[in-house]
Amino acid sequence: MLILTKQDIKKVFTIKDAIDADKDALRIYSDGKSVVPLRVNIDIPKEEGQSLFMPAYVEELDATGIKIVSVFPKNIEIGKPSVPAQMILLDGKTGEVIAIMDGTYLTQLRTGAVQGAATDILARKDSKIGVLFGTGGQAGTQLEAMVCVRNLEEVRVIDINNDRAKEFANNMQQQLAEYNTKIIAVENGNEAIKDADIITSVTTSRRPVFDGTLVKKGSHVNGVGAYTPQMQELDEVIVKNADKIYFDTKDGVLAEAGDFIIPMEKGVVSEQNFSGELGQVILGEVKGRENDQEITLFKTVGTAVLDVVTAHRIYKKAIENNVGKHVEI
Amino acid sequence: MLILTKQDIKKVFTIKDAIDADKDALRIYSDGKSVVPLRVNIDIPKEEGQSLFMPAYVEELDATGIKIVSVFPKNIEIGKPSVPAQMILLDGKTGEVIAIMDGTYLTQLRTGAVQGAATDILARKDSKIGVLFGTGGQAGTQLEAMVCVRNLEEVRVIDINNDRAKEFANNMQQQLAEYNTKIIAVENGNEAIKDADIITSVTTSRRPVFDGTLVKKGSHVNGVGAYTPQMQELDEVIVKNADKIYFDTKDGVLAEAGDFIIPMEKGVVSEQNFSGELGQVILGEVKGRENDQEITLFKTVGTAVLDVVTAHRIYKKAIENNVGKHVEI
Repeated sequence: MLILTKQDIKKVFTIKDAIDADKDALRIYSDGKSVVPLRVNIDIPKEEGQSLFMPAYVEELDATGIKIVSVFPKNIEIGKPSVPAQMILLDGKTGEVIAIMDGTYLTQLRTGAVQGAATDILARKDSKIGVLFGTGGQAGTQLEAMVCVRNLEEVRVIDINNDRAKEFANNMQQQLAEYNTKIIAVENGNEAIKDADIITSVTTSRRPVFDGTLVKKGSHVNGVGAYTPQMQELDEVIVKNADKIYFDTKDGVLAEAGDFIIPMEKGVVSEQNFSGELGQVILGEVKGRENDQEITLFKTVGTAVLDVVTAHRIYKKAIENNVGKHVEI
Repeated sequence: MLILTKQDIKKVFTIKDAIDADKDALRIYSDGKSVVPLRVNIDIPKEEGQSLFMPAYVEELDATGIKIVSVFPKNIEIGKPSVPAQMILLDGKTGEVIAIMDGTYLTQLRTGAVQGAATDILARKDSKIGVLFGTGGQAGTQLEAMVCVRNLEEVRVIDINNDRAKEFANNMQQQLAEYNTKIIAVENGNEAIKDADIITSVTTSRRPVFDGTLVKKGSHVNGVGAYTPQMQELDEVIVKNADKIYFDTKDGVLAEAGDFIIPMEKGVVSEQNFSGELGQVILGEVKGRENDQEITLFKTVGTAVLDVVTAHRIYKKAIENNVGKHVEI
């Protein structure tokens, strides 16, 4: 059994690798070639916590896996991570557990990468200006994925806590120096998006984080946060005005994301407004962007198939490069 | 995170420890103080295999866990175990994964121990003769649990493969030398049970492995195998004739065990014939054996609560004794 820490994963796996993995995962998902049982949730009321178990199987990779994610907000009081996570990978040919890896970093990678995949497929090739709402734990890989797939001159980052936005921008400017993109913290999100080509939101907001009427023609918008029916970070105006709307998994988004559940309940949008899944675009079953005037919108809530495919690729690269620690069990 | 192999577990944890753990687990289960979500099964038709994920949470121990068991019969052809298994233990206070241990040995221990708990609680104190049907992977801990809880003079072991029974008896005679019990392989099960005080069956048989009319008054019978609706190792006569019938988990037995599903469908027995769960006896809610003439019958199909409670106790003893390998993740 191979143990892979965040540092191990970083040694062998880039955001570009993760974007390739996620494109594969979305294709497999939309082609109906994965098995994704219902997530198991165990509530732990005593600690106001929850442990979630997310299994999946992908036949073409002979890979089975289960991600264990626990959400324990009170952990912060004792100096521990509030969302500890591990990924357990099984060999789909034998059922043996072959690897355990850092599930927090895996989640950051595959969640940044799924937006990267959407941006790569849907945003205008000549996109120059990016905007990122939210600078929490998932924001770093979101930013890297954006600058990885388009040659951006500038990305503006916004957070309700402007100091945090400044610190994030400074840190990321250093980490992503190789991309030659100017990363700046700004206070006014509505000013920031007016001439933006790519807008990504990764917040837990229950109110829209920008004015949808200000999104310019030809933009691409990614909704990555808002993963419960109560959360709504995207203005209903942009959900209504987008020319094309794509999901990572239609069933997931319509069951979990307030960004769509709320406007659908109000009758602002309906199923006819949805173009399909990004995996269907990859499969050639559904058209992507058709001209430089369309506003495209992508919404993701994630699926265990992203975890299994990405973890499987990380495992293979770690074995090839002799990275990680082998333990007997 | 602590890694515990079979050898590590053996260093710190005895069958008696496991019996104590299982008694606790059954009490907790029957008291409604555990959370046991539905098992997740992923079928892998390509390999004629199946991966099973069994989670549970026990609040009073602050312990969450998930056992991963894969059933891949074709593994034998490539020299690998056909039922690889691992147990993942989480700290119920923080949601962190704290240990991964050998799930195969854990299963053997907790399954032997649940029969040991039943035999300890239900068999006559002066029991002298034991009989064990089946000498497969689960048989060793079954035998040890029987001789651990009663001072038996002799245990007779029977298998459809008599050579395997002989080899098993010889090996176990050495391994269990400290108990001073004569362990012998016999061919005729019906002869063997006539004067037996304790009869345990741990087979996958679809036909009764002994004649129920021959079970003597005052005996205690354990049905440990027959874990699917098609398997039936216990003669319907003994299911009908037993004075008291107990389960590890009533819902589990009535959903999974052919030993009860088949005679209930035929109307041979009904719910009125069942005394209750062993955990209810431990709680004092249901009576156990009341005299030396009663035939008592215990049927177990297992529950993830047995795994979590046993794994949690193993983990604590391993930490106390500084056994196992710590790895960072």
